[in-house]
Amino acid sequence: MPRDTFTFADRAAHRDWLARQADLPVGFRVGTAALEFVPVEVPKPARMTLTVLALDRPTPVFAAKFTRNAFPGAPVLLGRKRLESAAIGAVIVNNKVANVCAPGGVEAAERICAEAARALGLSPEEILPSSTGVIGWRLPVEEMAQAIPRAVAAMQPRSILPAAEGIMTTDLYPKIRRAEVGEGTIVGVAKGAGMIEPNLATMLVYVLTDLDVPRDALRAALDEAVSRSFNAITVDSDTSTSDTVVLLSSRRRPAPGPDAFAEGLAKVCMELAEDVVRNGEGVHHVLRVTVTRARTYDEARGFAKSVANSPLLKAAVNGNDPNVGRLLCAVGKHAGALGIPLDPAKVRMKVGGEVVLDGGAMRLDPEKERRLIQHLKAAELYASAPAPDGLTFRPPVDYPPHGRRVEIEIDLAMGPSSAAVVGADLTHEYVTENADYRS
Amino acid sequence: MPRDTFTFADRAAHRDWLARQADLPVGFRVGTAALEFVPVEVPKPARMTLTVLALDRPTPVFAAKFTRNAFPGAPVLLGRKRLESAAIGAVIVNNKVANVCAPGGVEAAERICAEAARALGLSPEEILPSSTGVIGWRLPVEEMAQAIPRAVAAMQPRSILPAAEGIMTTDLYPKIRRAEVGEGTIVGVAKGAGMIEPNLATMLVYVLTDLDVPRDALRAALDEAVSRSFNAITVDSDTSTSDTVVLLSSRRRPAPGPDAFAEGLAKVCMELAEDVVRNGEGVHHVLRVTVTRARTYDEARGFAKSVANSPLLKAAVNGNDPNVGRLLCAVGKHAGALGIPLDPAKVRMKVGGEVVLDGGAMRLDPEKERRLIQHLKAAELYASAPAPDGLTFRPPVDYPPHGRRVEIEIDLAMGPSSAAVVGADLTHEYVTENADYRS
Repeated sequence: MPRDTFTFADRAAHRDWLARQADLPVGFRVGTAALEFVPVEVPKPARMTLTVLALDRPTPVFAAKFTRNAFPGAPVLLGRKRLESAAIGAVIVNNKVANVCAPGGVEAAERICAEAARALGLSPEEILPSSTGVIGWRLPVEEMAQAIPRAVAAMQPRSILPAAEGIMTTDLYPKIRRAEVGEGTIVGVAKGAGMIEPNLATMLVYVLTDLDVPRDALRAALDEAVSRSFNAITVDSDTSTSDTVVLLSSRRRPAPGPDAFAEGLAKVCMELAEDVVRNGEGVHHVLRVTVTRARTYDEARGFAKSVANSPLLKAAVNGNDPNVGRLLCAVGKHAGALGIPLDPAKVRMKVGGEVVLDGGAMRLDPEKERRLIQHLKAAELYASAPAPDGLTFRPPVDYPPHGRRVEIEIDLAMGPSSAAVVGADLTHEYVTENADYRS
Repeated sequence: MPRDTFTFADRAAHRDWLARQADLPVGFRVGTAALEFVPVEVPKPARMTLTVLALDRPTPVFAAKFTRNAFPGAPVLLGRKRLESAAIGAVIVNNKVANVCAPGGVEAAERICAEAARALGLSPEEILPSSTGVIGWRLPVEEMAQAIPRAVAAMQPRSILPAAEGIMTTDLYPKIRRAEVGEGTIVGVAKGAGMIEPNLATMLVYVLTDLDVPRDALRAALDEAVSRSFNAITVDSDTSTSDTVVLLSSRRRPAPGPDAFAEGLAKVCMELAEDVVRNGEGVHHVLRVTVTRARTYDEARGFAKSVANSPLLKAAVNGNDPNVGRLLCAVGKHAGALGIPLDPAKVRMKVGGEVVLDGGAMRLDPEKERRLIQHLKAAELYASAPAPDGLTFRPPVDYPPHGRRVEIEIDLAMGPSSAAVVGADLTHEYVTENADYRS
């Protein structure tokens, strides 16, 4: 199944495919437990899933990347400390409550680590905590402490699918990607749908491998893979307070060459990153903005993000409207704001492979417009159905019917560097989802 | 009528108020003419209004500020040249077609200047052209040339209202603001609703005065006023390719003190800027984000814009959801992305005057949540009505019922500088308006 053209006939076909991605690498076990609680802040019953990803024995070969948001969640603060731990034995994740800026947040996260450590026979320093969900709410620590032994008892060594499901919040479907490398495997799961412009996004990613790569090489490979994947996607330009990417090795299979590992890891990360966008809140169209001939990678990625984050362009794509004016507006805005000496006469832009700007003028005619509209329509995951109550839009699909994208290319004619950013359109479903998420 | 609390009972009350703002300063005349044409690019009939703002005699006392977008429209390229003209005698404005990146755009703008000069008995260098509307389309030069004499024949010296109406595109209502200063007057009109984050926005602003301020003082006053007004608003973070602010003096009334002029000009610009946001495409709520104790004005404005441009926060405000988590997320994202050493424990945030974050933790309880929701609801211009076809949302009002705002305050505890940015929420009406603007 080539990555760019996958198509699923129905939800069952997507589930079958997911199940085939889900085999755990050797040396890991996964378990989950559901629990109910009443938040102090908004006292109505809420539901949470606890997920435990455990190694058969703690490993010194692990890496983690965290959000750069200046208000990091308590689990991120603890996670940064854990980078100094000698070994990690398990990750414990909860959804529903992000434990960000909640009174006593760090103490709560430490208590969860202590309870998980007791249930798993580890020390608290060997537990990496993660939380995602509403910001500001307090963790229901007592209810979680009671659920941890149930999650541990449910652990099994076969499938990562329960973890992919357990970490979901507003995600429509679980996200799993894998690579077979040499004698071993790299398997990753991700959650994330809104608040996505990683630096990182509310995106949690766990990648497990049995390949015995040296710790330094593993950390370097993760840095590189994250920069080109999770840091090159955007749903709504909002960088969350909880973003976390964790990579653990059980060291049970011999290391392949370092390039082979880095390549496999990059593939898993890029595919998960696009899965996150494709599952973005209310996404109808996935866009890929490729910028070439910039002076640096960061400059190329900056232009691509400016385009992928333009509300006007995103809304036009939603309406299958090839509004090229908004594309050049977004490029010109970014150059103007940063003082980048772009020469409008040299810039070339394409949509769906068609030249739309060249020599400082738009290159459009009615026939080409029709082809551009066709390109947009072909990449539409679904069209909005009228809302039953006239106001509340819900996506009619809960799996990705296909893997196509709207392709936008911008040749800046300034230098040697390229970057690609994957983004999404702006839709009624996005507004509905985010106008009253908590209620 | 205090600026923060104006309320209009109905559209007629708003029209009455507008008419009272509209008296022209001495020495100016305004005329408009409508015309029909068929764009080459999308061959269905379209309608345009030509607007002429003319001085009784050309003036050397004028100023203009233009977009920093790297793909400026042809009228902006010409306008920059006009800054070197000895005098300006008239401004000619068309809506519907922006004349940006259209083949032969500069020649077309020059032809319009030549035709207007002939009709007015001026030289082409004394004509300042402006265009706003669809990017990429060609100006219908022949039809415009025929309409110019009609616009000139319609000129009258009493009211600026025809110009305020003539320059509108997706604007719901005309925007006029005035200040009486010493023995004279400053009167401004603005158009702009989408593609608004001036640096500048598709925002056209014309400010006329009869006060005989020296040209250098006039230009300095405009720089300052624009920085704090039009460059401190955002509807959708998109900086247009056509933004223009023009200030002309007929020199018919004695100059007041320079401070008095600068103050009056700043008032007119700030009020017009907020009018533009209040009339933003699909706006339900106007937000004012005030950042205090930043290290510099630019830093303060940067944080305020990050908040005002956060899609998640904008969507939450739309739903009257006081989602404080998204507020601190937006602040933290900006600090993280720019490496600003914010201390989360020292930052204080308020919404509607209520402390919501202090000492690194959110300060919320159910009673305060109710008050926050009430603050949001009180600032709502209208709520979405279910769309007749289930998909196409139209604003049910075409005038601003009141002047209230959602007030967000962020105290960074880092330095001496403050800034305020005025922005808007993200709504179904915005998505509808922009998903297929051209059709």
